[in-house]
Amino acid sequence: MSDDKYRHKWWGWGLEGIEYDMDARPSLWPWIRQKGELGDDPDLRPRVDLSEIRLPPARNTESLASALRMVVGDCNVRGDDDDRLVHCYGRSYRDVARLRAGIVDTAPDLVVYPGGHDDVVRIVELATQHGATLVPFGGGTNVAGCVERTAHDSRPGITLDMRRMNRLLAVDAQSRTADLEPGLFGPQIEEALAPHGLTLGHHPDSYIYSTLGGWLATRSAGTQSNVYGKIEDMVVGMTVVTPTGVIETRALPAASNGPDLNRLLVGSEGTFGVITRATMRVHAIPEYEDYRMLLFPTFQDGFAALHECVQCGYMPSLARLSDEAETEFMFAAKHPATGFQRWIEGPAKKLLKARGYGRPAALVLAFEGPRQLTLELRRGAMAIFKKHRTFDLGASPGESWKESRYDVPYLRDFMMDYGAIADSFETSTVWSNLMRLYETSNEALRRVIGDVTGFHGYIGSHISHLYETGACLYYTIAVRCREGSTPEEAIEQYSEIKRVATETFVSGGGALSHHHGVGYEHRPWIERELSERGLASLRQLKESLDPDGIMNPGGLLASEGPARIDGSD
Amino acid sequence: MSDDKYRHKWWGWGLEGIEYDMDARPSLWPWIRQKGELGDDPDLRPRVDLSEIRLPPARNTESLASALRMVVGDCNVRGDDDDRLVHCYGRSYRDVARLRAGIVDTAPDLVVYPGGHDDVVRIVELATQHGATLVPFGGGTNVAGCVERTAHDSRPGITLDMRRMNRLLAVDAQSRTADLEPGLFGPQIEEALAPHGLTLGHHPDSYIYSTLGGWLATRSAGTQSNVYGKIEDMVVGMTVVTPTGVIETRALPAASNGPDLNRLLVGSEGTFGVITRATMRVHAIPEYEDYRMLLFPTFQDGFAALHECVQCGYMPSLARLSDEAETEFMFAAKHPATGFQRWIEGPAKKLLKARGYGRPAALVLAFEGPRQLTLELRRGAMAIFKKHRTFDLGASPGESWKESRYDVPYLRDFMMDYGAIADSFETSTVWSNLMRLYETSNEALRRVIGDVTGFHGYIGSHISHLYETGACLYYTIAVRCREGSTPEEAIEQYSEIKRVATETFVSGGGALSHHHGVGYEHRPWIERELSERGLASLRQLKESLDPDGIMNPGGLLASEGPARIDGSD
Repeated sequence: MSDDKYRHKWWGWGLEGIEYDMDARPSLWPWIRQKGELGDDPDLRPRVDLSEIRLPPARNTESLASALRMVVGDCNVRGDDDDRLVHCYGRSYRDVARLRAGIVDTAPDLVVYPGGHDDVVRIVELATQHGATLVPFGGGTNVAGCVERTAHDSRPGITLDMRRMNRLLAVDAQSRTADLEPGLFGPQIEEALAPHGLTLGHHPDSYIYSTLGGWLATRSAGTQSNVYGKIEDMVVGMTVVTPTGVIETRALPAASNGPDLNRLLVGSEGTFGVITRATMRVHAIPEYEDYRMLLFPTFQDGFAALHECVQCGYMPSLARLSDEAETEFMFAAKHPATGFQRWIEGPAKKLLKARGYGRPAALVLAFEGPRQLTLELRRGAMAIFKKHRTFDLGASPGESWKESRYDVPYLRDFMMDYGAIADSFETSTVWSNLMRLYETSNEALRRVIGDVTGFHGYIGSHISHLYETGACLYYTIAVRCREGSTPEEAIEQYSEIKRVATETFVSGGGALSHHHGVGYEHRPWIERELSERGLASLRQLKESLDPDGIMNPGGLLASEGPARIDGSD
Repeated sequence: MSDDKYRHKWWGWGLEGIEYDMDARPSLWPWIRQKGELGDDPDLRPRVDLSEIRLPPARNTESLASALRMVVGDCNVRGDDDDRLVHCYGRSYRDVARLRAGIVDTAPDLVVYPGGHDDVVRIVELATQHGATLVPFGGGTNVAGCVERTAHDSRPGITLDMRRMNRLLAVDAQSRTADLEPGLFGPQIEEALAPHGLTLGHHPDSYIYSTLGGWLATRSAGTQSNVYGKIEDMVVGMTVVTPTGVIETRALPAASNGPDLNRLLVGSEGTFGVITRATMRVHAIPEYEDYRMLLFPTFQDGFAALHECVQCGYMPSLARLSDEAETEFMFAAKHPATGFQRWIEGPAKKLLKARGYGRPAALVLAFEGPRQLTLELRRGAMAIFKKHRTFDLGASPGESWKESRYDVPYLRDFMMDYGAIADSFETSTVWSNLMRLYETSNEALRRVIGDVTGFHGYIGSHISHLYETGACLYYTIAVRCREGSTPEEAIEQYSEIKRVATETFVSGGGALSHHHGVGYEHRPWIERELSERGLASLRQLKESLDPDGIMNPGGLLASEGPARIDGSD
């Protein structure tokens, strides 16, 4: 493929050859080993050799494959093991752990790379005629199981890899809209828009390896969602190919034309159809931006400061407040200081400690926009933060965070060599419930991690994605799996931790997910989230759009139980 | 009813006894008479006497009515002519013209006033059992036909007047959310929130006589939508009673839990079910606000100024740029100056004319929020406006506009005595298409008005509701109907003008409606707006939620042709 630079290695995150640069962060590994109670054996949980992996045998798809080749050309219909393997799972801990252990019991029979809207129309027709299922696939970074075929389905399975559909179709600079194809990866979008002085402003943690189509299908949120909105807020028009026809919405700034079809299509996780075009709001590249890092004596102080700041109307473009545990991680993970900075670091730390910042909470903060307005926003915000006893570490650590923000997923692969279970869980809730949900979730995670692994592990959290009404609460955990576990047992331990996290969020007033999607991981809770009648109406809608159930049948709206929420099948 | 102060007079806009204060605006009537080419006979088109109106005979609903009385009490099930009459139509020109002429061939058989969610659940059950239809009714201000029963339906018809459901159920000041019942009128919402220091910030032109439920059902926009969003942007959770069960969404700041059900329910115009609760985003009452009026030498200058302002990131909370014709109307409609202001007005006008503001375009402009940030926003915006040759008329005319902004609908009633056809048409489009659509629509309206009435009439327009991608374009027209027309003929002339306006908007790249809804007026264009498959999917969804088709069967998703788009039936 021409865009192989966006293809994950088969066993983990990111391109083959790119790994976490632990050498550049000498304090980190000792800290992690201690926190995650990991041993010193990098081969505790070695990954199998690629040659050992046995994919489930492909179904006979010869006539379907020939018909597909007529549409997209020979080289864009693939049935080789390499292609099947990189399209079988997303990139949750469960996914990566299974790949590393060679547990691959579901894979597409064919991977097809459409070149444009018309190809997709033909492919959906052919799939219908041949009784095959279709799973749209962007960058494959999803952590909720949205791109995985259910192993029970006897029908031929096609995964539709959208990466060839990576064109900027049109720009309307006067209206600040861009018509984009769904297979564009994050960096490709910004590269295409930059010559026009424009940006989409969407930077999720998966930015480098995820696509516009994937973001739309799962209601993604970027780091600057405070000002640019979640991906659903950015859509002005869409084209979606369903098995019963093409839905197309016109590119309008706003309308009163019945229920908003765009919002029905966004978040449908490939179960209604295939997105082939999206007209998106874009923005001028900000005239001025300011990234910095602040400290608060406690997470609670930082929470109070952010809450007041947002409610007083001083919304930062980015705010990511780490709790004390995650702040420790951030300081351990930083590149070592040199020269003057190193000389001053020791005394500065002592001073901070003496002032009550013994175990502080770090806030990464950004403002961006027209220079003077942005300066005024920052002034107002900083005045509020000062009341909450902030200590401004300045721009340098903020910039460092910005530069290394896409590195963390690589770290998980590194830790998994040592037998770690590591993943992230996220929710959102209203301000009045945020600290309560934080405490409850912390306690629930602490307990379940201890119960299932026998270790304490690391539990870190941050608040990000601010709204006037609330915010996202994001957890990262890392813990050694129970002594002597098989890979399957480690996955079972993960399943229980994941189940408790989700149950705690939903029963504690939080969202099932803020930006990771539903998939099969969160599907057991979807009825509680949407109400019985709400879920039923979406299922009925799916039935009308996709009467044969060929679109992502194991996904969001599947009526059967989850395929492998318990790690077995 | 306890809230009769929000009930329209049977023949027009607003409370019985409140009429347009023409005496206070001595320049207006001569100006209108000239522009609208109206004669001097206030009885050219007199309204019939209430006693002459014959409603269609009510169907026999005795057993249904008794069952309903058991639910809501005797006084909340009404079948008298007064109640039936004020619930038969909305308040478009077509509606008011029919009422004044005594053309009433459809009316509910029963008007029911539920007292809460549980009442609604029981009423929907009873309607289903008795084969009756239900039309939810808020303030009855709709101009697209959303609250009108189709005359062809032989089933008993209930209109559900929601005004008793007017409670603020809960406030979460920390999270800035409020749980509101749908029957709250605009002023009731603000009265309920004010003691908490909060505001919803939603002020459509119909504010005094329209309800939250109506706003949600039709995707309303308030004057400050630039910063607070349209009503759909304000929803965090909802409860909707459908014939097949209750859909309830949880109050979450944001989520990734499949397609956004809130956005499916908002804009459904009573065809899916009855809204019984909405959790809405609310805001602190702004610390500082600044309303003012500016002039531009031309509408084109004002357009360019607004476009630059928005795209540079200086979004005003309100901006309403009138074209030259509407500006003339605004100046004619203003209260006469007194004292010093009067003394200075003459020379000021001469000076303006000498400087090129001979036929200017007026911009009503507001900024609101935290004081310093708002001042900076205003400073940035004014700097841009100055480049576009603005002349700042200061706060006084801005404040006057704010005070009299809800008066215009009364003016229509006044003019109709003189035989005027008068209404408003609105759309939205992207910035790059806005001035082109403005020119095209002006020309199309000019031509059709001349063709069907034989007069030139008044055509005024403004740009409002700004987005980074575009804005709303709003037309007001007033013209004398063709000499010697019967009321039916005048309505036919209106129908043709309305048809041409909508066709021009849709074929010219504009939205079918920006905030007035679809109803039967806009339904002929809905398939072009949503695509064939998009519309079909909404119809299928309706079929699953409302298999007997009892919810507002003449509305948005009706499959038959429009009931009376041509003025006949």
